[in-house]
Amino acid sequence: MADKQDVPPRLARHYLEPGPVVLLSSRYDGTDNVMTLGWHQILAFSPSLVSCMISHGNHSHDMIRQSGECVINIPDSAMIDTVVGIGNCSGADTDKFASFDLAREPSQKVDAPRVAPCWAHLECRLHDRSMIEDYGLFVFEVVAIAAMTGTRPQTVHYLGDGQFQRSGDTIDRRDLFKPSMLP
Amino acid sequence: MADKQDVPPRLARHYLEPGPVVLLSSRYDGTDNVMTLGWHQILAFSPSLVSCMISHGNHSHDMIRQSGECVINIPDSAMIDTVVGIGNCSGADTDKFASFDLAREPSQKVDAPRVAPCWAHLECRLHDRSMIEDYGLFVFEVVAIAAMTGTRPQTVHYLGDGQFQRSGDTIDRRDLFKPSMLP
Repeated sequence: MADKQDVPPRLARHYLEPGPVVLLSSRYDGTDNVMTLGWHQILAFSPSLVSCMISHGNHSHDMIRQSGECVINIPDSAMIDTVVGIGNCSGADTDKFASFDLAREPSQKVDAPRVAPCWAHLECRLHDRSMIEDYGLFVFEVVAIAAMTGTRPQTVHYLGDGQFQRSGDTIDRRDLFKPSMLP
Repeated sequence: MADKQDVPPRLARHYLEPGPVVLLSSRYDGTDNVMTLGWHQILAFSPSLVSCMISHGNHSHDMIRQSGECVINIPDSAMIDTVVGIGNCSGADTDKFASFDLAREPSQKVDAPRVAPCWAHLECRLHDRSMIEDYGLFVFEVVAIAAMTGTRPQTVHYLGDGQFQRSGDTIDRRDLFKPSMLP
């Protein structure tokens, strides 16, 4: 996807707030890994903070805790079988980039690679470790975003129990907002 | 909606993980309030924990901090103008239940009322206050869920800048999961 452009980190909400399933990529000690994640939220605009619950049982947990970095990649709905496959095996015994034939792109501000076929990439640095031990909750600062331009691709959202929801149409309610509330 | 049924609290992900905009209702000191919220995530199954970022500037912040309770109500897409309206005024100077002609229902396990026209209600008790001061992040335990039965209603998801996304169709990938991964 040659048409990805840089986006200001404060616009992270545009990518994450609708709640898509994401692919979290990490690099530590010469190894790359990627996991599927649905437990994330926005915390603040400035600095641009997001949180992700990465279970202690996930191979990515220690990699991200040690490296202090990751990339949140957003797949489109055509990638759903890859997304499910990545979620159902472990980096402890699988080279997922090889197994799923996933191309990597270099990131701008972190060592962790981007997952190339995804349409948006949020490069993150660990901002607060204090909730990791109790909740597996990593607070990241989004330090760079690159995303495909043009029409927003259809995303996938997890309902549990092997069921996913695709995103639907977009509706504009700018007329119900005061100008001061819009960027 | 007479066809709401009780649902085990551990199934909170089914309602929240897809990332819908929710209405957070609260009661404190004889007053009810409701706010629009998109910054939430799932944290754990057992106990059933969710987190919500409720800014210090929101009137609901102190009400929920004091009462230690709220209800996460999930509106369908037909309620979008109400959802936007609730998000763009403050409980500090507006009785939102009156202004938006919102019916209330009693909750089962908390004092905060349910917002009746919503299709799902997650009753919550404050579980951990330690991240409120720094991040406005409330960790709640979901202590009861009631939800409409039958087909899942279309939800709305916020993209920022006055733009919303409606949920689309559901796709089944149970066949890609090991049986041990499904409930």
